[in-house]
Formats: sequence, structure tokens, C-alpha cells
Amino acid sequence: MSRFSEPPDPVFRRLNASVDFDRRLALHDIAGSRAHAQALRTAGVLDDDELARLDDGLGAVARELEEGEFRFEPDDEDVHMAIERRLTEIAGPVGGKLHTGRSRNDQVATDTALYVRERCEVAIGLVRALMGRLLDLAERHSDWPMPGYTHMQRAQPVYLGHHLLAHFWMLARDARRFSVAREGAGELPLGSGALAGLNWELDRDAVARELGFESVSANSIDAVSNRDFVLDYLAAAAICAVHLSRLAGEIVLWSSDEFGFCVPGEEFSSGSSIMPQKKNPDAAELIRAKAARIAADGDTLLGVLRGLPLGYSKDMQEDKEALFDAADNLELCLEAADGMLRGIEFDRERLAEAAADELMLATDLADLLVSRGMPFREAHGVVGGLVRHSLERGARLSELSRDELASFSELLDDDYYELLSAERSLESKRSAGGTASVRVREQLEVARAALRGIEAAR
Amino acid sequence: MSRFSEPPDPVFRRLNASVDFDRRLALHDIAGSRAHAQALRTAGVLDDDELARLDDGLGAVARELEEGEFRFEPDDEDVHMAIERRLTEIAGPVGGKLHTGRSRNDQVATDTALYVRERCEVAIGLVRALMGRLLDLAERHSDWPMPGYTHMQRAQPVYLGHHLLAHFWMLARDARRFSVAREGAGELPLGSGALAGLNWELDRDAVARELGFESVSANSIDAVSNRDFVLDYLAAAAICAVHLSRLAGEIVLWSSDEFGFCVPGEEFSSGSSIMPQKKNPDAAELIRAKAARIAADGDTLLGVLRGLPLGYSKDMQEDKEALFDAADNLELCLEAADGMLRGIEFDRERLAEAAADELMLATDLADLLVSRGMPFREAHGVVGGLVRHSLERGARLSELSRDELASFSELLDDDYYELLSAERSLESKRSAGGTASVRVREQLEVARAALRGIEAAR
Amino acid sequence: MSRFSEPPDPVFRRLNASVDFDRRLALHDIAGSRAHAQALRTAGVLDDDELARLDDGLGAVARELEEGEFRFEPDDEDVHMAIERRLTEIAGPVGGKLHTGRSRNDQVATDTALYVRERCEVAIGLVRALMGRLLDLAERHSDWPMPGYTHMQRAQPVYLGHHLLAHFWMLARDARRFSVAREGAGELPLGSGALAGLNWELDRDAVARELGFESVSANSIDAVSNRDFVLDYLAAAAICAVHLSRLAGEIVLWSSDEFGFCVPGEEFSSGSSIMPQKKNPDAAELIRAKAARIAADGDTLLGVLRGLPLGYSKDMQEDKEALFDAADNLELCLEAADGMLRGIEFDRERLAEAAADELMLATDLADLLVSRGMPFREAHGVVGGLVRHSLERGARLSELSRDELASFSELLDDDYYELLSAERSLESKRSAGGTASVRVREQLEVARAALRGIEAAR
Amino acid sequence: MSRFSEPPDPVFRRLNASVDFDRRLALHDIAGSRAHAQALRTAGVLDDDELARLDDGLGAVARELEEGEFRFEPDDEDVHMAIERRLTEIAGPVGGKLHTGRSRNDQVATDTALYVRERCEVAIGLVRALMGRLLDLAERHSDWPMPGYTHMQRAQPVYLGHHLLAHFWMLARDARRFSVAREGAGELPLGSGALAGLNWELDRDAVARELGFESVSANSIDAVSNRDFVLDYLAAAAICAVHLSRLAGEIVLWSSDEFGFCVPGEEFSSGSSIMPQKKNPDAAELIRAKAARIAADGDTLLGVLRGLPLGYSKDMQEDKEALFDAADNLELCLEAADGMLRGIEFDRERLAEAAADELMLATDLADLLVSRGMPFREAHGVVGGLVRHSLERGARLSELSRDELASFSELLDDDYYELLSAERSLESKRSAGGTASVRVREQLEVARAALRGIEAAR
Repeated sequence: MSRFSEPPDPVFRRLNASVDFDRRLALHDIAGSRAHAQALRTAGVLDDDELARLDDGLGAVARELEEGEFRFEPDDEDVHMAIERRLTEIAGPVGGKLHTGRSRNDQVATDTALYVRERCEVAIGLVRALMGRLLDLAERHSDWPMPGYTHMQRAQPVYLGHHLLAHFWMLARDARRFSVAREGAGELPLGSGALAGLNWELDRDAVARELGFESVSANSIDAVSNRDFVLDYLAAAAICAVHLSRLAGEIVLWSSDEFGFCVPGEEFSSGSSIMPQKKNPDAAELIRAKAARIAADGDTLLGVLRGLPLGYSKDMQEDKEALFDAADNLELCLEAADGMLRGIEFDRERLAEAAADELMLATDLADLLVSRGMPFREAHGVVGGLVRHSLERGARLSELSRDELASFSELLDDDYYELLSAERSLESKRSAGGTASVRVREQLEVARAALRGIEAAR
Repeated sequence: MSRFSEPPDPVFRRLNASVDFDRRLALHDIAGSRAHAQALRTAGVLDDDELARLDDGLGAVARELEEGEFRFEPDDEDVHMAIERRLTEIAGPVGGKLHTGRSRNDQVATDTALYVRERCEVAIGLVRALMGRLLDLAERHSDWPMPGYTHMQRAQPVYLGHHLLAHFWMLARDARRFSVAREGAGELPLGSGALAGLNWELDRDAVARELGFESVSANSIDAVSNRDFVLDYLAAAAICAVHLSRLAGEIVLWSSDEFGFCVPGEEFSSGSSIMPQKKNPDAAELIRAKAARIAADGDTLLGVLRGLPLGYSKDMQEDKEALFDAADNLELCLEAADGMLRGIEFDRERLAEAAADELMLATDLADLLVSRGMPFREAHGVVGGLVRHSLERGARLSELSRDELASFSELLDDDYYELLSAERSLESKRSAGGTASVRVREQLEVARAALRGIEAAR
Repeated sequence: MSRFSEPPDPVFRRLNASVDFDRRLALHDIAGSRAHAQALRTAGVLDDDELARLDDGLGAVARELEEGEFRFEPDDEDVHMAIERRLTEIAGPVGGKLHTGRSRNDQVATDTALYVRERCEVAIGLVRALMGRLLDLAERHSDWPMPGYTHMQRAQPVYLGHHLLAHFWMLARDARRFSVAREGAGELPLGSGALAGLNWELDRDAVARELGFESVSANSIDAVSNRDFVLDYLAAAAICAVHLSRLAGEIVLWSSDEFGFCVPGEEFSSGSSIMPQKKNPDAAELIRAKAARIAADGDTLLGVLRGLPLGYSKDMQEDKEALFDAADNLELCLEAADGMLRGIEFDRERLAEAAADELMLATDLADLLVSRGMPFREAHGVVGGLVRHSLERGARLSELSRDELASFSELLDDDYYELLSAERSLESKRSAGGTASVRVREQLEVARAALRGIEAAR
Repeated sequence: MSRFSEPPDPVFRRLNASVDFDRRLALHDIAGSRAHAQALRTAGVLDDDELARLDDGLGAVARELEEGEFRFEPDDEDVHMAIERRLTEIAGPVGGKLHTGRSRNDQVATDTALYVRERCEVAIGLVRALMGRLLDLAERHSDWPMPGYTHMQRAQPVYLGHHLLAHFWMLARDARRFSVAREGAGELPLGSGALAGLNWELDRDAVARELGFESVSANSIDAVSNRDFVLDYLAAAAICAVHLSRLAGEIVLWSSDEFGFCVPGEEFSSGSSIMPQKKNPDAAELIRAKAARIAADGDTLLGVLRGLPLGYSKDMQEDKEALFDAADNLELCLEAADGMLRGIEFDRERLAEAAADELMLATDLADLLVSRGMPFREAHGVVGGLVRHSLERGARLSELSRDELASFSELLDDDYYELLSAERSLESKRSAGGTASVRVREQLEVARAALRGIEAAR
């Protein structure tokens, strides 16, 4: 910039330079530049020969990047300048024409939007794969009884397949969220210039089509100020990461000696440097932890944009590392969750033993009283008293005598004893979405269809 | 609960009781209860008479709530218990039948989803009103030149109307986001019981229709564990609040003596307790600040859910105050932003004076050279040198002589001087989405249609 | 403010008014006003009679507040104005003299600093009480073996008392943190005026002494811009809340049927609306969850202050609700944690049974080999192989034969079998800070002294 | 770990391996290992020859690291394993003895504490340098009048030196905070083993002395679970970053054409890729933005630790990248702020012109009335009316006639006109900490002493 007489200070260079991280936008930048060059040709700014030289040059730069042969130089402030510098080395002075009718402001917004769209697609693919994994697991364990928990206390028996499908549906919402986020990044910023629009009437619709955008931004100031599409991705990533953390948290819990419900595959576990017996669920722990970091990435960008005047401000350069960090970690967690579940082994016996805890059938007993006309609230109280009595007596509910039952309610007869079976309880949960086998089978079919829907949509 | 022999400790009561804040779900809770009672009738759990007594009782409770006559009692732990308690006082023991086939877990999820849907609708309405306000302001100021800024430095002239429309489009994305969030809260949780489903096959589809949900949740465990819909609302609110903070930040800036671009209405300003001359843009400052708080509300719930096992945990009670705080503050900010803009006065003269800064036309000079065949990168350098020269000489660009120009480039002739006008620069930004009048007029029409689209969709 | 011709809009009033929450600063405000009035007397701004009337009036207002008889009026914008209004009603026009040499900017900073100092003291007191509770529990359970966990996997046996003391030391750091935060709020802002200082040379040192501050702020602009003391409190609160959440998370875990290590007192537990058998650790769950909210309160203020120019901005009004929310919730959590532990019962048998898991002694076996000259890394491998062998054979480590041992290492002799006892393992952890009884007893003494140190310091 | 039969999955390896980032702890790790080896010698676990070989080997590894010749291998899971692997290559099988009486749990806690202590020292040094820069600037501009602002509105005249000193005092608090954080990291974790303590009575006090710790941790479980010292650093960093963001925000604002108060040095500014005239305050913008990121780093760790059971969990590995990111960015911002201020030029004329705004003297006029006996609240109203009158009349306050004055108050005489000077206003702010020259000079001396205090303390 010849307006300047002083070179940048080395400290400032370190603070300011983004090429160490924005280099991963390089191929998107080149795609944008090729479409822009074509638009400059259509508008008559370039002639055919210039276009060809630029296009060939950009192709050559892309190849260097793909083959790992591109050399970033110390003076390359950002990926845009690095590519233009290299292009000019290859194609000669015509390289200096490429930036006509373009600013880094609309350029970087375009690159970032392309990147976000790609990340959304990748996330959808990984989410889908994990959904498939869960679905397979759910099918294989659709009739394994286990305790359902609330407050981490045994509540009512459920089938393991039913529980695993709960995670499936959480992920289905994530897939939708990434799909909406992808759409939200569907407006082309390029063609907005620094912020006011251009002196050249470039065919922005053609550029949008070429790059796969659905439309062009309606307002040039908004186009360069907007990072909503990054915020949307980060919000989707944060929620998806929370879902994964809940899954991972359960794996950690269930892998404990006390629960003993599952053993994650060795290839996703670690030992200890000191304790030779340890096999730790490290993958699950890290997935659980990374949700905090991914949420923090979203906070960063919300914080950066808060109160910022419109038009590009350099603050916005801080969007990228947050985005990259979130995407890298989310994708890694999704892959690792899939891998971790691939080798997981559930312990049918431990699950069944826990599921046989009769206290979890108390609600069914109350419902028995209800079906005989007692208001639920009263029935709840009667069974509560029964539970307390059995705990104080040190007897299981099924060990109480008819006389003892009668002292709590006349309505309790031999049907009481028949109810005290996990299987019976499970199969009576026949309301839509319930854990009864018929419902779980139904659900598996709907889930299978939902999964196909995601595949088709890609 | 008769299983207990000890009453709750007063400290625990303070920690545990939610009635002080969840009472605002009261009418949603009653709506849910009425639909549930109907479903119990259909399933044969209630007879016609019982249904009628419950329904009348719930209607009476609703009236007490609406008329501010409902008395919450010290022992009411939460809004659900308060309503059931009062219902039973009014309708007698049949009140105890209402909780058949229902748990607070699916009940509170349902109430909260209904609340979120309502908040989304309210937010869309307020966003739409503010969009309308901005559109009117943009129309009235569509041809007022002002400086466009990047890095808070004057960059290129734009029309004030164009700048205001940038805020319009930001809000348009918010309206979409709340609409997606509303859809995301469209699955009925009720009918999932504590987590396993119910012993009663209630007609969940009918309940969903009655309450305005689009479908029923597919999995009972997911239904009681899920708070995605609150997260979606909070993410939408956080982004919308950031948008408002950027608008507000500009109002604060533009109201400074140094900018002097606008004066917010007195009815949205405050004085000082010590300095008699002060008229401070308090409304804008508070809107700016509240974005931090609203984002923090989202963090709270992400944090609460992170790593939490499925099935209801009491941690999830912390969803509500975060949600209420975000909704209250966002809605207040949207209303206040609208009011603040209602009385705002822009200073055409100050804006025009600032817009007349010739340095902002440097890009146009570079483009002149480009149109004469010089590569942009070279042209950028030539004009940079020219700018530096004029600053060093203490002359405006238009005061440079032909000879001086020639010393920079032979391509600079009398057209140079003609370019040095804000109006000319503005009108030449004719690319789609640019600030040229023709484009702004186009944009106003599209914006008007977009606004109608939101109105129609409600 | 007679500079204004328009009254505030009702929406603005709702946004702007702080009296609904800053009223809790009322008594601090009055204390500050009394000290300020005295300084005005010393400086000759007031005469003795005026001072007396102001002081009596402020005393009367304070009494109204304490007795709940103070009436806030709709036009009271904030607590400062409400008190001045009431003072003037009581004391007459002299009330209008009180605000001489003072601005709400230095006034609210002073009130808030006083409030923070008080909250720090309260937090220290509550932390100390909880430390005392943990210490008592640790003493009573100092020799109860239990498994120590890493990665939520059994690692090595420890004493329950030792584990409980770990929480004690976490809280000891919290006490220090609140103490440092209190000191950090030790500079008096009052006497800084709006931001430039005063036209009156008030004796700020006297005011500081009167209000209990250690010194006066050195710079009037910093004094009104500074909220570091709130940030310090919020950081301390966030860390303390994380500590409580770790304690609470363990209580939830240990209360599960699978762990069964403890039962929290009924008076800090809840039942279920549907499942009559449930006794849920609600207090622990809420304490765990509230840490997210308290951290978010800190984020709010960091976000509000970020990038804010010096001098008071209205954004800073958002400091208070974050502070109040954090303080209320932290104090409630501290009290509830104390209460929850008061009634907790540990199950010695379940703990001991779990502690008897021989695999936790693997490290001791490796150390045996080390003591016989084998490098630890090799010993770790030998014992790892042994563990795998025993798991594959389905035998406990103590059931392996001498021949089997010999196939792993010649160094394994009968001492091997003697090592396989939790007690022996526990008692051999004699390094400083280790779990051996002698070390735990030592630690209890140090802890008791540390606790006395906190009491003395208050 | 020979307990495992399956090698780690490549995805798990990517998730789990920390060597890409924890390698920056390498030298701290070696320091810890040397001290540990010495302790093993004292305890008789090693003989003199073994100690010598380990110590020499560790020295050789350290040299390789310092000279950039150390090769991390693909199988090196973390820095600890990498160093032990290389040590064993160099020193032979004795390398396998080093991990006796040590776990990665206490090892990594120790390395991290050493790292935090170093970062605190670096931060204090950089803060001190920036304080020195501000102090020099303040001295050089101690008598330059400028407007003081509240609500970004001109409030009262202050000296630029006084304003710059406000930033000095903010940083002084940061220096204290880092000093407290350093002390908080003063307990040695090493010697705690996996979590239970050790079978070897190592002399932990000697290790602590060797590594510069003040004491040893009192409880082995706490020692491996504790990351308070990282949280303390992150809290201090977040607050310091907010301070820098406020300074940077003012530089951005003051560099705008409209304010025109300063021009940051060219070596800390950037141009535009499209607009040849631009000179943007990029350094200030980036410093402003990075505060959001640094705060998010703190959120990450609070989130990771929340609810985590005691004893090491793999989640805690997520402490490091947050810490490194915060430290790198904070240190870069501190350096850049210093550099940015080194070349800054203030515009005395523009500042003085703005400072001459008579409206800023309204408070002085009110105080004049007060000194003549009018209660301040009434005086405030009188002057408010006067201001409004002058604005409506389009006259400056000094242009109002004696008659006009009299119509507002009889107490306004010729002294009124004398008060209407920025200099007089400035010099009358003689309260302690005020902007009057005498006070600023005093403050400069106190500041100089405070700076020396920090230097001495290091």
C-alpha cells in the first residue's frame, strides 16, 4: 500500500497476519476468484486472453495447494494476498487485474460462507453415520431390559434399544439444524465491494450459480458485516456437541465398575501410566469435555460481533479460528463417537439384573389402583406407603403378604403380584413413543425412514 | 409423598421450589391439563361427569389466574402442584385423577414447549415491527449521503437509507430463525410419562392437535430429556440481540458530539444527576449491553445440559429462568429499539458534510485507471501515492493540479476532477445490492415484500 | 431534568429503571450518603444544622427500609433517586443539598463496592461453615475404605475421610479467593464526581475510614469506570460454584442404586409426581446445575465491559443483576450443600465391598517388583499382563497360583499375596498428603488449624 | 500397556493424543523429572549411578528440545511419554525407573502449575511495560485538555494525561491479579501419585524447593483433581483482556475522522485491498476483539470441570489448549498495545477544540449557585433550563446576557462568565484523584512509585 511510509512492526505482523489459519480457505478462495474472473470477462473488464491466463494461473495455484507444494511467504498477510501474489508470479501482471471490482471484505465473507456450507455437509454426513450406528445398536438390543433413570435414580424399566433411540432422535434434530444452517449461508456476498457496491455491474447471479449459492445478498453493507451464517453453524455445533456429551457421559457412567452396563472397545480406551489394571473410557471423557470448548467458540464470535458497527472491522478476523476450532473438534467427536460405539459391548446380564429392581414397578402398582377407580393422587400415596413399609421391613415388594397389602388398600389383590415383573411393565408401556416392544419396532421403522430421508437430501 | 418421613428443610425448599418463576407457565399448564383430561376421557379413565368437573375446575383456576386472584401457597412446590392443589379444592377428589398417565416430566416439557412457541411468535411480531420502522426510516432517508465506514474509518459514501436497510436484512434473518425455532418446538412431549411411556394408550395425536403441536414425540425418553427447543430459542435470541446491539452501538456512536449524525428522541434519553447539560442515549446503551446477558442465558442452559444423562434430572429446572430472562430482555430491547427509532432525528447537514470527504473517492479514482487499462493492483498503488501526496501537501484531492496528477499517471485527465463528487460515486455503485439510488429503490421494494411475507406467515 | 421537554416513554422507563433491583443497595446507599454529608460539613458546604437534618432524615429513611415501610414510587428511577426523594419529603429542601459534590457515577460505584465487600464476607462465612461440616464428616469417616476413582474407574483404595478432605481444601482456596476479592474492593470511589473530580476538596480519607474502605481511588476516571471488584467477586463465585458442583455431582453419583455409597437426608430430597418409590437427590442436582448459571453471570459482565470507553456508560447498569443473581445462587448453594451433608448417611459396607476390588492393588504389585530391582516401566507391563491373564481366566488376582505368578516374573513370591489387601495398600500410602491413616490424621489437624485461621481472620 | 490386546483406533489416537500441544510443557516436564529423580535417589529407589544416568539423559533431552532437534514420534501420545521414550533411547533401561512413585496425574498437574507460574511472571512483565508506556505518555500529555466522556457524550473537561492514567491503574490491578494467581499455583502436586499417594516416602519438600514451589499439596486426591490455578490465571487474563479492549476501543474511536484525537503509528495500521486512502487501526481492533476469545477460554475450563468427580478424568486434558490460547493471545495483545502506543500521535488542537465545548461546564455553573447557597438539586434544574434556553436560542452559554441569566437566577452575576473556561474547570477539580494539574502531578508520582514496586517485586 503505497499510502504508507512505514513497514509493519513485527509484533503487529504477528497480531495481524491470518495466513497461518485462513490458509484453509485457499481452495474456496480460488473457486471464488475463478467465478469472479468470469464475471469480469462478461462485464468487459477482462478480455478472453486475460481471462484464460487468470483461469489457468488460478488452476495452477490450486494444484500447488492440493499437492502441498504451495509455499506461503513471510510477507503473505492472508490467504487472499498469498494467492494473488503467487498468481501474479505465474500469470504475470494480469494477476493484478483480478482484484478489480472486489474487496477482501466481500471476498472473505464469500470464502467463509463456502466453508460453512461445506462444514454443514460434512457434519450432516457424520451425524447420519452416527445415527446409523445407533440405529443398528438399537435394533440389536431392542429387547434388552434395563433400568430407565431419572435423577440418576432407577425409575422404570425400559429397553436398551429404546434408550439408544433417544440419542438417535437428538441427532436427527442436529441434522436438521445443520441443514438449516447450510441454507442460511446461501446468499452470495461477492459483488458487494468494500461495503458500498461496485462501479462495475457484474453478473452476481451467475457468480452465485457457479459457486452453488442460492441467491445474492440484497444489501452490500449487510453483505460485508454479516457473520450470521457462522453463528448459525456454531449454535448448531454447540447443541450437537451437548448431545454427544450426554451420550458420552452415559458411556462413562455405564462403564464404571458399579454400573458395569457396557465396556467400550479397547481401541477407544486408554491405560494408566501407573496403574496397570486400568482401562479408561478416554474417548467418551474427551467427547464429554469438548462440548464446553465448542460452546465457547460460539461465545467468542457472539462477543466479537456484539456492539460492532456495520461495515467490515478487523475484529471480524476473529471469526475464523473459532469456526475452525469448533468444526475440527465437532467432526472429531462425531467420528470418535461412531468408533466408540462400533466396538462397545453391553452386558445383558448386568442390565437385566438392574432392571429387575421391583421398586421401579411402583408406578404400575399405582396405575393398578387407578384402574380400579382410585384417583391417581391417592394411589400414589398408597403405593408410597407400601414402598416405605417394604424398605423398613427389608422385604421386596413381591414378598409382602396379602394381609400386608390389604392394610394399605382393599383394592390390592393377586393381580398385584403379577404386575411385579419388568417384562410386564415394559410391555404395558404401549402409548405412542413408549418402550413396549411394539412401539420400539414401530420407532425403528420410522427411524430407518428418517435416516433414508437424510441420505436422500444430501 | 408418603414414602418420606421427614419434611423438606427450609433451605432445600428455597433451593428446590420453582413456583416463584414457573408460575408464568400457569395458563399453558392448564391448557395442557384440559387436553390431557379429554384424552383420559377418550381412553375411558374418566367418565363424562368427571371430565366435566375437571374441565370446569380448570376453567375456574384459569380465570383466577387471569384475574390475578389465584393464591400461591407456601407449600406449592411448583406451578403444576399449585394448580392441581387448587383444582382439587374447587373440583373435589376428582382433581386427584388428573395426574393419571402423566408425569411432571412430560408435563413441564409440554408447558415449556408451548411457552417457547408463544415467545417465538411474539419475537417475530416485534422483529417485524422493528423491520417496518427501519423500512420507513430508510425510505425517508433513501437519498441522504453519509460516509460508509470500515474499521470505523470513512470508506466510501453510501446513502443513509442503504445503511438502515442493512439492519433490516439482519432482522429478516432473525424472523426466519424464530420461525425455525418455533417449528423445532412442534413435537408434543405429553404422553411420555416419567420416561418410559404410559400404561394407558392415550390419543396423543388428538392432544397435539388440541394444543397446536404438529406431531408427537417419537421416543418417550427423548421427550422428557429434550430441551433443544429452548436452546434453539436462546440461540436465536442471542443472535438477534447481537444485531440489536450493533444497531444500538451505532446510535450511541452517531449521537456523540463528534459524529453528530443523529439525536435520539428525548423520550428514550436520560439526563445526568450532576451534569445539567447531559442528554444521554441510555436506551441505546442498555440495548447494547443486554446482548451480553442474553448470550449468557444461552450459555447457562448449554452448560446445564452438558454431560447430563438422559431422563429428567432436576438440573433441568434451571432451563426456565434462563429462558424467561432472555425472552423478557429480548422483547424489551426489541420494543425499545423500535421506540428509540421512532423519535430519532438525523442531521442531514452533518451527514452530508462528512460524506463530502474526498478521500472516500480514492477507489473510484483507481477504477478510473482500471477502465483505462491499468491493472487494479497497480492503480491501487498509484492512487495510494496520490493520497499520500495530497495529505503531505495539505491539499484536497480536487486541489491537485493536472501536472501533479500527470506525475502519478498519464492516464489521469480532467475526468479525474469530475469523479470527485460523493453523488457521482454513490450513483455509480450500481451492482446488485449496491448503494446507487436505483438499487436502493429496488431493495426497498424487495424489503416491503419480505415484510409482507412475514406478516402473512403468522 | 429541566433540560428535557419530553417525559420518558413507558417502554424506555421499563428498560431504564433499575429501582426494582438496585433497591437492595439501599442501606449501603444511605451509609454512603451519611458519610458524604459529614464530608460536606467538614468542607463547609453544609452547616451543623443542615448536617443534622440530613443525618436524621437519612436515619429515618433507613428505618423505613429496615422495617419494610419504605414506599418506592413509580417515578423513582433508581434507588439513589428514591432515597433522595424520600429524604427531601422528610427533611425538606435541605435534601437537595446532599448531592453536592457527588454524581450517581461515583455513588453507585461506592454502593456496589460496599455490597461486594459484604457478599465476600458472607461467602467466606458460608464457605467456612461448609468446610467445618466436611471436616467433621472426614473425622467421622477417616478410616472407612472406599475406592478412589480416576476416569470414573476404580483406581486405588482411599479412605472416605481423605476423599472428603479433598473437598475441604478446594473450599479453603475459595475462602482465600473471596478474601482477595474483598481487598480488591477496598478503594473508595466516592469523591470522584461524574468522572473529573470535584470542585470541592472533600476529605475522602475520612469518608473511606467511615465506610470501612482501606484507601481512596487514585484517579477519578478510573473510579467511575471500574467494575473490577465485581468481576473479581464473579470469578471467585464461578470457581466456588464449580467446586460445589463437583461435590454435588459425586453425591448424585454415589446416591445411585448402582453405587449406593450414600443416602442424602430426606429433608434435602424429593419424590416423584408419578413414581411413588422415588427419592431423588434434588438438592445435589440443583447445586450441580447452578454452577453453569453463576459462570454465565460472570460472562455477562465481562461482555458488558468489553470494549467500553472509560467514564460511566449506561451499559454498566447491567452489572447489578448479574452480581445479585450470582450472589443469591452461590449463597443458597453453599447453605444447601451444608444442609445436604448434615443429614447424609454413608454405607460403610457398600464402600468396603467396592474397596475390596483387588484390581485396584495392581500398582502396589508393580511397586513390589520395583522394590526388587525391576524398572517401573517393565513392572507395569508385567502386572498389566497379570491383570489380563486373571480377567481372561476369570480369577481374582489372589487366586492365581505361585506357578502362574512365576510365568510372569521370578520376582513374585508369597509377598504378592500379602499385598492383596485394601488395608495394606491404604496404609502404605505414606507419602506426604497420601491416604495412609497417619497422613490423614496429620491432615485433619492441619485442616482444623486452617479453619481456625479463617475464623480468626474475619 | 500390556493389559490391552487391541491397538488404539486412528480416530481415537487423533482425539486422545495431546503431544501436538502439550509439547510446550516439555522443559517443565524435564525439570520436574530431574527433581523427581533426585527424590528417588534420596529415598533409595535409585543409586548414584542410576541418578547420574537419568540426570544426564534428561539434560541431553532438554538440549535436543532447546535446539529444536527433538523428534516427536507418531506413537508419542503425550509429552511425558515422548520424553520418557527418548530418555530411554539415550540412557537405556534405567529410563524405565524414572516413573517409579509418579503418575501422569501428578506429573501433568505439576508441569501445568510450573507453566502457569511462568505465564504469570511473563504477564506481569508485559503489564508493567505497558504501564510504563502509559505513564510516559501521561507525563508528556499531562496538561492537554480534552473532553471527558460519559455515555460517549462530552461530560467535563479532563487532561489527557489524567485519562491515560486511568488505564494505568486498571493495569496495576492486573499486575496484582497475576501475582495472586502465581501464588495460587504455589503448591507442588508431585508426590501424590495417581490419587492416593505413594508407596514411597519421597521428600516432597525438597522437590518443591528445587522447582520453586512454596509448599506441597496437603491432599493427594485434591492435588490431581485441582485446576484452580489455571482458572485463576484464566480469570486474570480475561479481566486484563477486557481492560486492553477498553483501551483499544478508545483508540479505534479516537482514530475516527470524526473524533480525530489520535493517529496510531503506521507500523501498527493496515491499508485496504480496494480503498487506497485507508489507514485502519487494525491492531486496536484485534486487541478489542481478542478479549472475547480469552474470556471464552476461561468458560471452556469452567465448563469442563463443572460436575466432574474428583480424581483425574480425561476431560481435564482440555485445560491445556484453553490455557495456551489465552496466554498466547493475551501476551500478544499486551505487546501489541505497547507497540501501538509507542508510535501514537495525539492531536493537541483537535482535543483542545473539543474540550472548549462550553456545555461541559454546566456542572461548574451549578456548583457556583451552590456556593451561593442554593441546594444542588435546585441549581441543577436552573442550569438545565439555562442549557435548554441556550440551545433553543442557538447561542453559546457565554453569549447569554446578564439579563437572560437573571431570568434564571438572581445569583448569576459576572462570575458566571469567568467560569466558562475549560482551564478554570480543569484546575478546580482539586479533590483527591481529580484532574486538576496538582492532582495529576501527585498521581504521576504515586504511579511511578507503584511501577517501581512491581519491578522490585519480580
